[in-house]
Amino acid sequence: MRKIGLNEVEDIALGASLLGAGGGGDPYYGKLMAIGAIKECGPVDLVDPEEVPDDAILLPIAMMGAPTVLCEKGTGGNEYQVIYEMVSQYLGKPIYAVMPMEAGGVNSMLPIAAAARLGLPMVDCDGMGRAFPELQMVTFTIGGVKATPMALTDEKGNSAIFNTITNKWTEELARAVTMSCGGSVTVGLYVMTGAVMKAFGVKNIVTRSEMLGRAIRCVKDQDSLPPEEAFLRSCEGYRLFRGKIVDVLRETNGAFNLGRILLEGIGGCRGQTAEVSFQNENLAAVVNGEIKATVPDLICLVDTETFTPVTTEALKYGKRVLVVGLKCCEMWRSERGLELVGPRYFGVDTDYIPLEERAKGGNGYV
Amino acid sequence: MRKIGLNEVEDIALGASLLGAGGGGDPYYGKLMAIGAIKECGPVDLVDPEEVPDDAILLPIAMMGAPTVLCEKGTGGNEYQVIYEMVSQYLGKPIYAVMPMEAGGVNSMLPIAAAARLGLPMVDCDGMGRAFPELQMVTFTIGGVKATPMALTDEKGNSAIFNTITNKWTEELARAVTMSCGGSVTVGLYVMTGAVMKAFGVKNIVTRSEMLGRAIRCVKDQDSLPPEEAFLRSCEGYRLFRGKIVDVLRETNGAFNLGRILLEGIGGCRGQTAEVSFQNENLAAVVNGEIKATVPDLICLVDTETFTPVTTEALKYGKRVLVVGLKCCEMWRSERGLELVGPRYFGVDTDYIPLEERAKGGNGYV
Repeated sequence: MRKIGLNEVEDIALGASLLGAGGGGDPYYGKLMAIGAIKECGPVDLVDPEEVPDDAILLPIAMMGAPTVLCEKGTGGNEYQVIYEMVSQYLGKPIYAVMPMEAGGVNSMLPIAAAARLGLPMVDCDGMGRAFPELQMVTFTIGGVKATPMALTDEKGNSAIFNTITNKWTEELARAVTMSCGGSVTVGLYVMTGAVMKAFGVKNIVTRSEMLGRAIRCVKDQDSLPPEEAFLRSCEGYRLFRGKIVDVLRETNGAFNLGRILLEGIGGCRGQTAEVSFQNENLAAVVNGEIKATVPDLICLVDTETFTPVTTEALKYGKRVLVVGLKCCEMWRSERGLELVGPRYFGVDTDYIPLEERAKGGNGYV
Repeated sequence: MRKIGLNEVEDIALGASLLGAGGGGDPYYGKLMAIGAIKECGPVDLVDPEEVPDDAILLPIAMMGAPTVLCEKGTGGNEYQVIYEMVSQYLGKPIYAVMPMEAGGVNSMLPIAAAARLGLPMVDCDGMGRAFPELQMVTFTIGGVKATPMALTDEKGNSAIFNTITNKWTEELARAVTMSCGGSVTVGLYVMTGAVMKAFGVKNIVTRSEMLGRAIRCVKDQDSLPPEEAFLRSCEGYRLFRGKIVDVLRETNGAFNLGRILLEGIGGCRGQTAEVSFQNENLAAVVNGEIKATVPDLICLVDTETFTPVTTEALKYGKRVLVVGLKCCEMWRSERGLELVGPRYFGVDTDYIPLEERAKGGNGYV
């Protein structure tokens, strides 16, 4: 167990926005919520997964909907308490700790705010190791864990508890209510025991986010390696492309941000072109017509100078980005994992081939 | 207390479909569910409102969504038990009886099926005394009663409990889930005590439906009055028009059936025209350009020969109908009642003038 204070929050937010793979929203708003809660209620205890008793009840907390909406309409401040009471009343059992469900700008931060305000520890584990757009897309679904009972509340005070026959149905029903509540809500779901968390969770993801964030922040402070090399080494990333955004095509469909960007190569990629498609998160990176990476591997765009992650909202003409591939966690590469989040689920017409396999037969840039 | 068996169900369904004022769906399917449940589980005890203890917990049960969808996709059979368990677990108290919320083809029948299957009595009271399209449109809303906790379940086994800040928000959120569940669900809402039911309910509505149904069925068996006179006397109805449907305009918008029908006069109305607009239920009747009745008064179309009520789904070219106005219950005529269900709420641009007032200055047909 260790403390998460204001400095840790800065690094976690920065690192998680890299793991967000374009999605998860602008980390700024989420960070403000975590910082506000820590300033008011004090630092949060981060618990190592192995420290959690097997029978302890864990409550993952997240926002559902469009992070861009959340930034405009805000939160009411009482949501975590409402979710906590709904779930503990429903179960008739006390809750041991909260937990994040995904890494990304907003959902890496909300559980910290919740933990601070509820006076509960937070477990260093999530269910994605990255960000994904739909709520059934967690490693716990692979493990057969139910998303429900799921508690949902909006900033106005409306709330609901769902019980569904599949996690996809949870997504359907909760998404409909999220839209009716104005596009963003706070949820508590995949309530689980410590034993289940240890069996199916992506462990130590908060610590990984923090280390990534620190590495990005410090990349220019070292001089043993060129900055880009230092950055890639710190995140174990594959360099997929370096280019300037020459077109951004966006479409909003069913509460998702869909689209693609076109890139023209710069530096070592001059004369080449690339395309990155996204549904909230980046789905596929294609360089000179050849697929270089697809979901569930992480395709991350970072600023070529600062290595700050660029989320899909921030994509714009002229921005110079490095496209980096990160390996997803092993569970996503299983048959059941690929059914849930493989390229075909998102309409990308290719079999999944691991990033590092594609790199072997590549055009030499990696 | 008296028993509701198969004969009573026939009359209640027929009478309630008159009170449905065009809405509430075809009574046939609802009747089949009530008949099936009574055949399997025996007759239902109908309890007079005054017999209910003040502190007894009552559970109104209804279907939400499009009755036309319900008729196609059916019910799973286990919904009442699920709703019952959700609500009683939530409250931590036993439920004394079920209750209908509206009079109409389907929702007058479902509570009978629920009572039979749950082995509970049913209270002779509802919250409308007619049918209305949205769930906040009940006399209990006038009385400040909350629609939530509201339990919802579909035939597949998905369920949710809502808690909302207003009854209009209950409508918003539950409607969104209803649409996602395929357009029809079973709900338990406006859970209340006996005292509240006595203060704000529309009492003895089941008995009234039954008497109306019997009167319609027997109108040809008497010979003291012409059939139409006998029918109008039995329901205390105002004759607004008699005509042939010459056009039906329909639109489906936001899960509602909207539209209007045009009528050409027959019999004593020859040479005249009329128009009836509807949103699930009939909203306004206009004869020769003059408004004769609006919501919340009941505008009912019945077959000119059999006096069988014609629901909006069954409207078609060539059908000969008598347009009849029935006075709504007094609570709907209050300021708060008219805010909820007055003509302007439904986009009918007129002040509410009671049916009997409009009849006084009328064109002489009434």
